[in-house]
Amino acid sequence: GKKVLIVYAHQEPKSFNGSLLKIAVEELTKQGCSVTVSDLYAMQFEPRATRNDIVGHLHNSEAFNYGVETWEAYKRGGLSKDLVEEQKKVQEADLLIFQFPLFWFSMPAILKGWMDRVLVQGFAYDLSKAYDGGLLQDKLSLFSFTTGGSQEMYSNEGICGDMHYVLWPMQHGIMHFCGVKVLEPHICYAPENVSEEKRKEMLTAWTQRLKTLWKEEPIDCSPEWYFK
Amino acid sequence: GKKVLIVYAHQEPKSFNGSLLKIAVEELTKQGCSVTVSDLYAMQFEPRATRNDIVGHLHNSEAFNYGVETWEAYKRGGLSKDLVEEQKKVQEADLLIFQFPLFWFSMPAILKGWMDRVLVQGFAYDLSKAYDGGLLQDKLSLFSFTTGGSQEMYSNEGICGDMHYVLWPMQHGIMHFCGVKVLEPHICYAPENVSEEKRKEMLTAWTQRLKTLWKEEPIDCSPEWYFK
Repeated sequence: GKKVLIVYAHQEPKSFNGSLLKIAVEELTKQGCSVTVSDLYAMQFEPRATRNDIVGHLHNSEAFNYGVETWEAYKRGGLSKDLVEEQKKVQEADLLIFQFPLFWFSMPAILKGWMDRVLVQGFAYDLSKAYDGGLLQDKLSLFSFTTGGSQEMYSNEGICGDMHYVLWPMQHGIMHFCGVKVLEPHICYAPENVSEEKRKEMLTAWTQRLKTLWKEEPIDCSPEWYFK
Repeated sequence: GKKVLIVYAHQEPKSFNGSLLKIAVEELTKQGCSVTVSDLYAMQFEPRATRNDIVGHLHNSEAFNYGVETWEAYKRGGLSKDLVEEQKKVQEADLLIFQFPLFWFSMPAILKGWMDRVLVQGFAYDLSKAYDGGLLQDKLSLFSFTTGGSQEMYSNEGICGDMHYVLWPMQHGIMHFCGVKVLEPHICYAPENVSEEKRKEMLTAWTQRLKTLWKEEPIDCSPEWYFK
């Protein structure tokens, strides 16, 4: 069976995001997948990139450079335990699903901190090993999120602009940079502002999509997909 | 004199970001501005949006909804002390400068957490009070950051794509959403990979820009500026 890591960033299990997580765990498990969940708020995951991420001595203790220090620490096996555990989960996964509510045209800080701290140089990319040459090839990713605003607001004519613009830094700037292929995002627009019936339809649509997920082709994660 | 809040997200005072911060504090102070710095790492600023941000009872303790709870808490004066302090600094400022290294096509998580937690509904925006109607009007903002990649990499033909794409969620999605006007960003490309002389030129350019900052016109923060 395939291995899936769901990185989940919502405080409340009873939330709509919580329901989407539950559905993914159940449906993928039913398919025979091995599913791991990193429930960031429940783990009290640390989002801050600090000296604490390096165990033992620093490469240069005169002037702290997070990128250099985590790269060096990765090479000598000196990253903090929580990072090593997350990297192991990523390494083993065939598919990474990120489940979260959109905060300010991006991820909640706790999830951004996961990206900042887990995807260090040496592990996720390296000198001239980025984008199609990134170190996390042969993996898929999927951004699944809810919004406050409606689909119309996130259209080309809408006040928030085209949703593709929001996807660029996350899908291209992070996942593609690491060599991870990107599946179509799964976006539930404004679940808090629609009817109970519509919410149920959204949940059903997610179950349905997951049933044929492994047959999907990744998007062509190039500027044309986003800014055509 | 004008009031300036610099929200600064770097761990190391001796870093290039630290030098840019120092220059801004010195130059703006020299001009007679009153400058406040929120040094996020030094403050150990909390980036996680949790129940701890609400003092006392919850509006709905059955299912925690961060957006609703912080909105309600703001209205009754029940936000946590660290948020109230940051909001006071924002309220008093004529100009907000964000100084940080670009992490994964965006802000470091600690700064994203500042956005997530400080700019709550009721304070920064409200029902139908967003974008040009946002609650933080008559303020200016400026994103000042360093990159790992070169300017060529962040061009239209470059592998990272046009830098304007990266600016959209931060400038339009956050600042413009709150009604804050946006000055041209100040970007120092790859300071770690250039000569000492070039680094000095970059620092001088920042000083020079600050000298005439108050005469600048904000950008037209519309899709055309980003995706023309």
